[in-house]
Amino acid sequence: MKNKISEALINNSIHIENALSAYLDKTDSQYGILYDVMRYSTLGGGKRIRPFLTMEFCRLYGGSEAAATPFACAVELIHNYSLTHDDLPCMDNDDYRRGRPSAHKKFGEANALLAGDALLTYAFEIASTNKAVKPETALEAVRIMAAGAGTRGMVGGQQLDLNGVHGSFDYDTLLRMNTMKTGALIRTACLLGCIAAGQKDTDKAACFADRLGLAFQIIDDIHDEHTEADKITFLNFMTVEKARSIAKKLTDEACGILDGIKGSETLKQLAVYLLHRNH
Amino acid sequence: MKNKISEALINNSIHIENALSAYLDKTDSQYGILYDVMRYSTLGGGKRIRPFLTMEFCRLYGGSEAAATPFACAVELIHNYSLTHDDLPCMDNDDYRRGRPSAHKKFGEANALLAGDALLTYAFEIASTNKAVKPETALEAVRIMAAGAGTRGMVGGQQLDLNGVHGSFDYDTLLRMNTMKTGALIRTACLLGCIAAGQKDTDKAACFADRLGLAFQIIDDIHDEHTEADKITFLNFMTVEKARSIAKKLTDEACGILDGIKGSETLKQLAVYLLHRNH
Repeated sequence: MKNKISEALINNSIHIENALSAYLDKTDSQYGILYDVMRYSTLGGGKRIRPFLTMEFCRLYGGSEAAATPFACAVELIHNYSLTHDDLPCMDNDDYRRGRPSAHKKFGEANALLAGDALLTYAFEIASTNKAVKPETALEAVRIMAAGAGTRGMVGGQQLDLNGVHGSFDYDTLLRMNTMKTGALIRTACLLGCIAAGQKDTDKAACFADRLGLAFQIIDDIHDEHTEADKITFLNFMTVEKARSIAKKLTDEACGILDGIKGSETLKQLAVYLLHRNH
Repeated sequence: MKNKISEALINNSIHIENALSAYLDKTDSQYGILYDVMRYSTLGGGKRIRPFLTMEFCRLYGGSEAAATPFACAVELIHNYSLTHDDLPCMDNDDYRRGRPSAHKKFGEANALLAGDALLTYAFEIASTNKAVKPETALEAVRIMAAGAGTRGMVGGQQLDLNGVHGSFDYDTLLRMNTMKTGALIRTACLLGCIAAGQKDTDKAACFADRLGLAFQIIDDIHDEHTEADKITFLNFMTVEKARSIAKKLTDEACGILDGIKGSETLKQLAVYLLHRNH
């Protein structure tokens, strides 16, 4: 089972990498190095979990690859813009990302800042010009993306993370921060897949996404235990064993939500795969 | 005539300030200081030229204030996000904006960065949820905004500005940079006004905007002559007198484009007002 989901993830990565490459294939000198930085920030790495969720929920509800791909790429661009800005010296000050220098180390801070801005803007352009869905669906996608990436979602979560102070941060705040910072974009990815397929009832996808997102973050916190000493994580509130058992419970719940939906095996396998991942 | 346009600008500023205040009126503690920074970056200053253009083009073509206001606010949020990021130390490193400390001086770099990201995202949310226009129109607005703010527009122009080197920068590049950096968002503002009114033929608005935008930048360059020594401006290529005469010619052309359109006096007055402004 694990090999099957690994293979599905690899196939998806290839598909998304190709689609992103096409979107970012601007070499006209009029752009200076802007697209070079955007490509560097986006291509050649990452598990492409969010696009996978978009593609897979679209498939689950009978939609086409053509309808889902632009939305999947848009979500991935938002993810990569956030990483590019997060790595900046004034934020996490990370010199490395995916085993190579982060964008600001490679191209300088100003170029990394602008590339991040450009990636976010481009995400909205790609979603709004998705020709394989109805205009109403493209508009709904924009709304879902803006809600997931904005103050009630990802940026709001980053803000909470940034200004969180040990001691004043209780467990409910931790849950809320992670639901916003990591969960909101994962939920966005799932919802975009549903609407690409014309599936209007997105309740199950949202419930699945919320549990998956939280479990994902818990496992991340466990992996980063020794590198994120100044961050508030699940491990400030519990042991690794307890954190793992919560992630396991969330994963079981996520899978249970999809029970009875024909063709949902791949999504369940993904949830289990993410629980047991070791990077 | 000058008093009349001054009055119209003041009335518009009040209207836009009220609308922006309502959009940014989130005081829930869950957002931390994010909305404080967004409000600081956006409220209490600026001539609101871009929103004025949106409101006025909508009025010109018989549209409602309700249809234009969300689009006008969205453009202004994009403008203010770009100023907030531009002021950052890695970009222009400006400590002051509109006579008070810039956002990063007041709230720190990380908060200014996130607030800028949030303003850009919120702009797309506001435009896509404009209930006073048809879904197709809201979608078209998102597309116009993404094109105007993205790599072919504002961000692309900033990139050219950032990496421009004296000597390698010819006059055509200067024109292109300014058309992208300043002109694209002014054009966006005008087009959004047209589509808010259901006006599909936006050629005249675009031609007006392009001339207005360039004239606007030339006057800006003249005002900033002694403070922007390291920037490439029109004054690297000509005298102040020559620059003024080009701005005058562009303004005349802009006004000429609107000749014969009933009710276009206010827009013409704006163009003349901007030519003669002294700040």
